Amino acid sequence: LARLIFVGKRGGRPSVSQSDINTQLVSFAREGATVIRLKGGDPSIFGRANEEIATLNAAGIAIEIVPGVTAATAAAAALQKSLTDRGRASRVQFMTAHGPSGEMPDDIDWAALSDPRATTIVYMGVRTLPLLTERLREHGLIATTPVIVVENAGSERVRCLNSTLGDVAEALPVFAPEGPCVVLIGAALGD
Amino acid sequence: LARLIFVGKRGGRPSVSQSDINTQLVSFAREGATVIRLKGGDPSIFGRANEEIATLNAAGIAIEIVPGVTAATAAAAALQKSLTDRGRASRVQFMTAHGPSGEMPDDIDWAALSDPRATTIVYMGVRTLPLLTERLREHGLIATTPVIVVENAGSERVRCLNSTLGDVAEALPVFAPEGPCVVLIGAALGD
Repeated sequence: LARLIFVGKRGGRPSVSQSDINTQLVSFAREGATVIRLKGGDPSIFGRANEEIATLNAAGIAIEIVPGVTAATAAAAALQKSLTDRGRASRVQFMTAHGPSGEMPDDIDWAALSDPRATTIVYMGVRTLPLLTERLREHGLIATTPVIVVENAGSERVRCLNSTLGDVAEALPVFAPEGPCVVLIGAALGD
Repeated sequence: LARLIFVGKRGGRPSVSQSDINTQLVSFAREGATVIRLKGGDPSIFGRANEEIATLNAAGIAIEIVPGVTAATAAAAALQKSLTDRGRASRVQFMTAHGPSGEMPDDIDWAALSDPRATTIVYMGVRTLPLLTERLREHGLIATTPVIVVENAGSERVRCLNSTLGDVAEALPVFAPEGPCVVLIGAALGD
């Protein structure tokens, strides 16, 4: 018999805070329950796992981590594309375009992200996508670079917007995603 | 009834060539077989999926891709660490240190890899690790940066070497890995 408690984030709406989640993990474990903290994707990539691990370690509660399929590779599978490609993409990088305040983080290495030989995957990147594409173009990434927005990666409700760095900001409102999205950017995503 | 054909790479020893794999995928599919191309990790990250996808598309053979757990996140789970961390790592990057010739690729963006606020995961990076750590230090990454080598990530035979950028080249021969390894580099991996 398992009790299910929803603590997921809901874009733009009130959600359970991280500290409440940490507190619940410890208190249920102390009551003797076996607690499964189920996350979408993989906990080690923008999953705030460190905060939960540190809390549980401090409380002396033993944990095991089961890796998952992160949104980037789920999106790649849906697109039937590789994120790496001999000759076109020798480096893959994941970033979030959603800082603690919900705005674009201010410590971004734009030169690293504008490398034409890398594939970049942006987590939580829809809201700030117009600003992101503008910055990447300012840093030299060309307007024809393929950009694909994947909504609900890893689910049956997956939808994809195939665009380019120059056009995606305009195409996005028509695509009108409602579920979580990852944004894939890079020459290796072209045909 | 399934027939199992091993086509895996074997470090340093003769392996089935990529073009032979491509040819076999097409010929078995044309005979009417349902062919499963099983890979360790995830096919979209240094899995040479594009070459197999292109061959099958050209032959008009329908495919489905099932995403997997890439070595980086399997290693993170074994280490009970997150690859991202609010405040210490806002970007995660995957690279290979094994170019087509087996040597360090010559098109590496060293500035991007030496960013102290990124976590870097090196696939197939053991052979060239001394050179890699030297280059990263030359580009400004400090010698105390945590470096962890994870052998057989995702298997029960997993082993980890906890070291630093300054010490790992010397510690590696003692660790003496025999299975496939990923190398994790970055401040977020510290305690």
